[in-house]
Amino acid sequence: MVERYALSPMKELWSVQASLRRWLSVELAVMEAYEQLGLIPLGVSEKARKNAMIDLSLFESYERETDHEVIAFIKMATKNMQDEARYFHYGLTSSDVIDTALSLALVESSDILLEALSKLLKSLWVLANRHRYTVTIGRTHGVHAEPTSFGLKVLNWYAEMKRNQERLRIAREQVRVGKISGAVGNYANVPPEVEELALTKLGLKPTPISSQVVGRDHHAFFVMVLALTASGVERIATEVRHLQRTEVLEAQEPFKEGQKGSSAMPHKQNPILCERLCGLARIMRSFVSTSLENNNLWHERDISHSSAERYIFPDATQTLHYMLVKTNHLIENLTVYEDRMLKNLNLTRGLVYSEKVMLKLVEKGMSRSEAYDLVQSLALRCWKTQEDFKTLVAQNVPFLNEEELESIFDPTQFLKQVDRIFSRFEGE
Amino acid sequence: MVERYALSPMKELWSVQASLRRWLSVELAVMEAYEQLGLIPLGVSEKARKNAMIDLSLFESYERETDHEVIAFIKMATKNMQDEARYFHYGLTSSDVIDTALSLALVESSDILLEALSKLLKSLWVLANRHRYTVTIGRTHGVHAEPTSFGLKVLNWYAEMKRNQERLRIAREQVRVGKISGAVGNYANVPPEVEELALTKLGLKPTPISSQVVGRDHHAFFVMVLALTASGVERIATEVRHLQRTEVLEAQEPFKEGQKGSSAMPHKQNPILCERLCGLARIMRSFVSTSLENNNLWHERDISHSSAERYIFPDATQTLHYMLVKTNHLIENLTVYEDRMLKNLNLTRGLVYSEKVMLKLVEKGMSRSEAYDLVQSLALRCWKTQEDFKTLVAQNVPFLNEEELESIFDPTQFLKQVDRIFSRFEGE
Amino acid sequence: MVERYALSPMKELWSVQASLRRWLSVELAVMEAYEQLGLIPLGVSEKARKNAMIDLSLFESYERETDHEVIAFIKMATKNMQDEARYFHYGLTSSDVIDTALSLALVESSDILLEALSKLLKSLWVLANRHRYTVTIGRTHGVHAEPTSFGLKVLNWYAEMKRNQERLRIAREQVRVGKISGAVGNYANVPPEVEELALTKLGLKPTPISSQVVGRDHHAFFVMVLALTASGVERIATEVRHLQRTEVLEAQEPFKEGQKGSSAMPHKQNPILCERLCGLARIMRSFVSTSLENNNLWHERDISHSSAERYIFPDATQTLHYMLVKTNHLIENLTVYEDRMLKNLNLTRGLVYSEKVMLKLVEKGMSRSEAYDLVQSLALRCWKTQEDFKTLVAQNVPFLNEEELESIFDPTQFLKQVDRIFSRFEGE
Amino acid sequence: MVERYALSPMKELWSVQASLRRWLSVELAVMEAYEQLGLIPLGVSEKARKNAMIDLSLFESYERETDHEVIAFIKMATKNMQDEARYFHYGLTSSDVIDTALSLALVESSDILLEALSKLLKSLWVLANRHRYTVTIGRTHGVHAEPTSFGLKVLNWYAEMKRNQERLRIAREQVRVGKISGAVGNYANVPPEVEELALTKLGLKPTPISSQVVGRDHHAFFVMVLALTASGVERIATEVRHLQRTEVLEAQEPFKEGQKGSSAMPHKQNPILCERLCGLARIMRSFVSTSLENNNLWHERDISHSSAERYIFPDATQTLHYMLVKTNHLIENLTVYEDRMLKNLNLTRGLVYSEKVMLKLVEKGMSRSEAYDLVQSLALRCWKTQEDFKTLVAQNVPFLNEEELESIFDPTQFLKQVDRIFSRFEGE
Repeated sequence: MVERYALSPMKELWSVQASLRRWLSVELAVMEAYEQLGLIPLGVSEKARKNAMIDLSLFESYERETDHEVIAFIKMATKNMQDEARYFHYGLTSSDVIDTALSLALVESSDILLEALSKLLKSLWVLANRHRYTVTIGRTHGVHAEPTSFGLKVLNWYAEMKRNQERLRIAREQVRVGKISGAVGNYANVPPEVEELALTKLGLKPTPISSQVVGRDHHAFFVMVLALTASGVERIATEVRHLQRTEVLEAQEPFKEGQKGSSAMPHKQNPILCERLCGLARIMRSFVSTSLENNNLWHERDISHSSAERYIFPDATQTLHYMLVKTNHLIENLTVYEDRMLKNLNLTRGLVYSEKVMLKLVEKGMSRSEAYDLVQSLALRCWKTQEDFKTLVAQNVPFLNEEELESIFDPTQFLKQVDRIFSRFEGE
Repeated sequence: MVERYALSPMKELWSVQASLRRWLSVELAVMEAYEQLGLIPLGVSEKARKNAMIDLSLFESYERETDHEVIAFIKMATKNMQDEARYFHYGLTSSDVIDTALSLALVESSDILLEALSKLLKSLWVLANRHRYTVTIGRTHGVHAEPTSFGLKVLNWYAEMKRNQERLRIAREQVRVGKISGAVGNYANVPPEVEELALTKLGLKPTPISSQVVGRDHHAFFVMVLALTASGVERIATEVRHLQRTEVLEAQEPFKEGQKGSSAMPHKQNPILCERLCGLARIMRSFVSTSLENNNLWHERDISHSSAERYIFPDATQTLHYMLVKTNHLIENLTVYEDRMLKNLNLTRGLVYSEKVMLKLVEKGMSRSEAYDLVQSLALRCWKTQEDFKTLVAQNVPFLNEEELESIFDPTQFLKQVDRIFSRFEGE
Repeated sequence: MVERYALSPMKELWSVQASLRRWLSVELAVMEAYEQLGLIPLGVSEKARKNAMIDLSLFESYERETDHEVIAFIKMATKNMQDEARYFHYGLTSSDVIDTALSLALVESSDILLEALSKLLKSLWVLANRHRYTVTIGRTHGVHAEPTSFGLKVLNWYAEMKRNQERLRIAREQVRVGKISGAVGNYANVPPEVEELALTKLGLKPTPISSQVVGRDHHAFFVMVLALTASGVERIATEVRHLQRTEVLEAQEPFKEGQKGSSAMPHKQNPILCERLCGLARIMRSFVSTSLENNNLWHERDISHSSAERYIFPDATQTLHYMLVKTNHLIENLTVYEDRMLKNLNLTRGLVYSEKVMLKLVEKGMSRSEAYDLVQSLALRCWKTQEDFKTLVAQNVPFLNEEELESIFDPTQFLKQVDRIFSRFEGE
Repeated sequence: MVERYALSPMKELWSVQASLRRWLSVELAVMEAYEQLGLIPLGVSEKARKNAMIDLSLFESYERETDHEVIAFIKMATKNMQDEARYFHYGLTSSDVIDTALSLALVESSDILLEALSKLLKSLWVLANRHRYTVTIGRTHGVHAEPTSFGLKVLNWYAEMKRNQERLRIAREQVRVGKISGAVGNYANVPPEVEELALTKLGLKPTPISSQVVGRDHHAFFVMVLALTASGVERIATEVRHLQRTEVLEAQEPFKEGQKGSSAMPHKQNPILCERLCGLARIMRSFVSTSLENNNLWHERDISHSSAERYIFPDATQTLHYMLVKTNHLIENLTVYEDRMLKNLNLTRGLVYSEKVMLKLVEKGMSRSEAYDLVQSLALRCWKTQEDFKTLVAQNVPFLNEEELESIFDPTQFLKQVDRIFSRFEGE
């Protein structure tokens, strides 16, 4: 865990304190289930809940003593209990508690991520609409292609993040499973009814079959979706980095007041946030291979996944959370230079309209190859002599009138379907 | 592509021939859409379909000549056409055809994978049921834990593969999108109606917004699900490798007749298929990072993903297909040694029942700590002296009668919930 | 293997034919060693060499028949042999032949790669020197920083490739090991002297201890170095992609004659080669995790690495070879627009010299904070009003004379150490 | 960073405190270099060293204030300085300090790792020699192959770790480079002589050319070697996990006193340390792709690598350090059950000697195919009837005398080259 990339409330979720609290909630849910099924005396779980103790330093001293997390936890939790302690952790194996509690943590993480993603979606939607009709050059291969709207660029990000929202909801469902099924998953010492009741109380579903643990394919899916979402952030951040370069300067990431003017070089506003997001996306990617390798546990379970998960679950959820929050900040405060967009659009002196000229000539009856040859020769001349392409066309294609010329060289014609595209996302 | 791991029909799907055929089907669907919308003359698409030519060697010669795949394709396809050629590829950009056709390939791949997975599921279900009550030792950390049923092991694989089936269906939907939206995705030269109609004809959905291409997050999701499924195969294969080791020998992968006895060492039947599957799972994992990196295309698209996709789509789909087919063969022909399972179960001379003894003592009124101390001392003695644990218990715990002893040391008690677990999957 | 990214002679190296030839050379070297040690009759190996047969279709038919590569190979190789066949494959295990032959292939691959790298180094050196004094803007974060020389940029690539050359030589040495040590590496049926002699004949070294195979850490190291070299290519390609964007246009990758003018948009020369190289670098990266996983073979060897290696060795060597050859083409034919470099350098109207102004003021006796404040206020004004920074400084800093001003705003001062830096690489 | 996997002294090396100390040592070395070259007044650097302050809380408050690590550091470091502060950080860019200091940290890390590795090598050598003549079955595919010595197994690990030692030394040299060359690496404000002198003082070498930073290929190489070493640990740990399974039980990882007997199931000593090491090896692998992606910085540098490096350098060095220390503990305290090794060796009732029987028959004059058929039929009978293979051979191959039989079925014959193999590592 890198302190600086851990934000509330995700940060607190992964504290030892929070973890112990989740373990306790699993134990208490199981007790209530036993009680409800008449398998242990009435009132026991209420007493347990009342007397249960969470004390971090006590836990740590017990852990040093016993060298066993769950035993230390039980000693701590039951310290103030009386007879009800007999029914605490009754018929359970350590993994019943730990693995189910892990699912609680992953579901909570999902909720935090979904909330951050939801905010980001709102910002993206606002920004997209603000620039719905902002003309900018569309680029393929980094080279000018055809005019488009800056809003469409942003809407494309929005659409990807909507897909990630949907995927994250699926991923949340995938990890919303627990297991209270004993050492090898055959309910040898705990009846399936207890599992069903307890997990329902916890907001989880039973996995229909488990080994000692929940299958790690659930977790791998979860991690993969997080990494995929991070790569969406990376795509946004990369675009802004491109747009912020000195020669382009169509957009800039937000600068703090203090940051601005901190240097003697006012042009040196660097897209450091976006670069940071790109680096973090690489980190997010790296968790995937580990989580896939973790799926291949031996027999009814080996514990090799555990050490790896101590890294990847806190790191993956915290890092993505940081990324979503910061990307939201980026989008909410992005500076967009519309005038520069227009200026850049005209860098090729009209060449980006050459296909439109050709199509018009064909429409006016010229054969495709004739039209192509004519346009090509004019385009080459424009490229070499730096003349204006529209002027060249006006001079050399006599049968196009002024109005037609205006219409061909009008970037807004490329925006004619913008509303239609936006409408596909409205009302969501 | 590794020839030996490419099976029909997946192999044919990735041939150049098949690829050209998919490109043609996209072009024709677009023509039909134009025609249906009244934008081009009636009857044109029918003529085009009739006169369209697919000729691999012609294509190759055109490609050498033009150094452009799509131009070569158009020349080939329209070679025998007459006037209808004017409306072929009308208003399209190369990516409209190529990217949409790629989605067709991925959907077809998904169908082939789903069919192979479906067969595997059936085999797993049969095997699981055949061994529903086959007692075997459950192992955690590679060490004997508690008895369980071999059928449950297999059912656990079945359950994971069912989840993968569900994920693969989602992944298929994710790539079942095309785009006919022009060079930068703004429908500058083709109306959205054409896209909608054409894609519907092709069994695809329009992505609500595209750049020059469909967002690569769709494809990354697809590849990740394939890799995850492969890791499920790896888990099965690893288990069989463990069970087939000389000291365990509870199961063996199928051997060909010729293979059997080919060596002078009959015990040397090696789980080479399972080992191969494990190696292939590593390959499958490796595609994920590439597909995630591919998502970060610049602006309205750069073509960096393309070279990488020439490797990973054919390789990932063919390799997983091979894995599923071979795993089905493995499961259908797995040799299971039930007697050896029982023999191995008793290797610890009854120690695996020690927890049951302790719980019984508590049930009979002994305090938990007294019971624990008694059982522990007997267990240690059994471990050191190699005495039989049940005999030791009988001798040292006088208040347990014969019937109780039998019941404690009865492995089938660990199977009492087996039917219940199976029932969760019945009727699917 | 993707046909289009496989070039001669790397391509031929991985053919089945070439593989069989390497197997034969191992067998013959072993025979010669036996003979030299007096363990088999004199003259036998010469006869074997004369009568040995390589016939692909025969091999394939034997393989179908026996389902065993090495047995099929032996049948084919010895088909025309007489008594000498008795000593063919004498005392060997399959892996002695296959694994040693694999090392031969990897050493040959290394030589091909090193040759391609050597050519690339020459081109880089030439290009670097050609532009030793070509002034260009240095960029950090994509934003203008300080002037530098384009030759230094290229020299930086050269330096990295020199490091990769050194690494590749180390990697070649790491895989230049074979093993003729039997089924579990204990020389049960073949004396170590045979191994030493045979490997020396083959240009390999014995690994001082082996299992059934050479440790896969050797191979993983090799693959890692290849991936690292590929990332160096990616860095070059990415820079060219940046320089080729419409707004920058300081350099362009080569276009074929036919390619130029093929479109009506002459500005639309896309860096498709560089993009392709970037995609291939991702593929190269993906081989690393597989090769690291392959190292963890069970006991004296399992065969899980084998299926994975059928992909990664041919793919990794062929792909990197393609990348190096194409990068050499790129560097040899890179178009560099020096005038545009100068023009871009001045885009900030002199702001990139602001630090130099400040240092001069301090040198002239102004306190650092005074100097900073003065320069900063002028810089901000220049940034906002688009005035020329030098003019502003001239107007507002009276005690700087014309000569001093010229010297401050002279980009070549940033090149004063260029020769020194180059000299570090001369005479290599 | 996962607290529990961070051990001294690696842990302290990555504290903020230690980092600030390294930054200071770079600054002071630069001052001394300037002074030595007569570029700043004599005595200045001594004063600076005396008055320099490291105060974590002061640093943190300055950082909150300025939002810039290096400015905060300079303010803190120079707080108690007088006139000498003028020459602190003179002519430097932040990266000169940070990147050079990072190399110091990586070199120190390397030293700690090399020391831990050196200890592990000693333990491996001792264990290998202790079991030089301990007969055990060699296994391929997890299946019994031929007898070998347990010492050879361990020597194989030793040999791999020796290779890793050599690689780590190379990696250490690769990162033992710094740069004091200014914002874009052209020494605009600091002469190369200062770099050379300062780095030499710090025990580093100048990289012959740098951008704003040292090329990230150096760091990627370093991380790759760490991951490769970790995979060697994984191989050891995996073997122990196999040997510790209930059915094999030839070796066991150390158990703490408290741990032993903590359960009622004395056989349930789980290889949790080895499993943990396997999980950590997966984590180590995951750092490689990130470090390779980090190499592709834009132009003279972007800062995308920085966020990622905050994870991978501390995590990779600390995790590998933990792994090496724990593996040393494992090897020093490994329990080896020689009797069980012998018992397992005989599980196949002599079949592992079948090849030796066949070779003897050929030696005695039988044709290869006759010998093969005879041995095969006996082997199959032995496998099916569970008869003893030696007895079967004695009964059915009359011309083998008792002495010959003994010699064939003597496992120590497989150890005849053991000393020779060991001798290759002696005297190192």
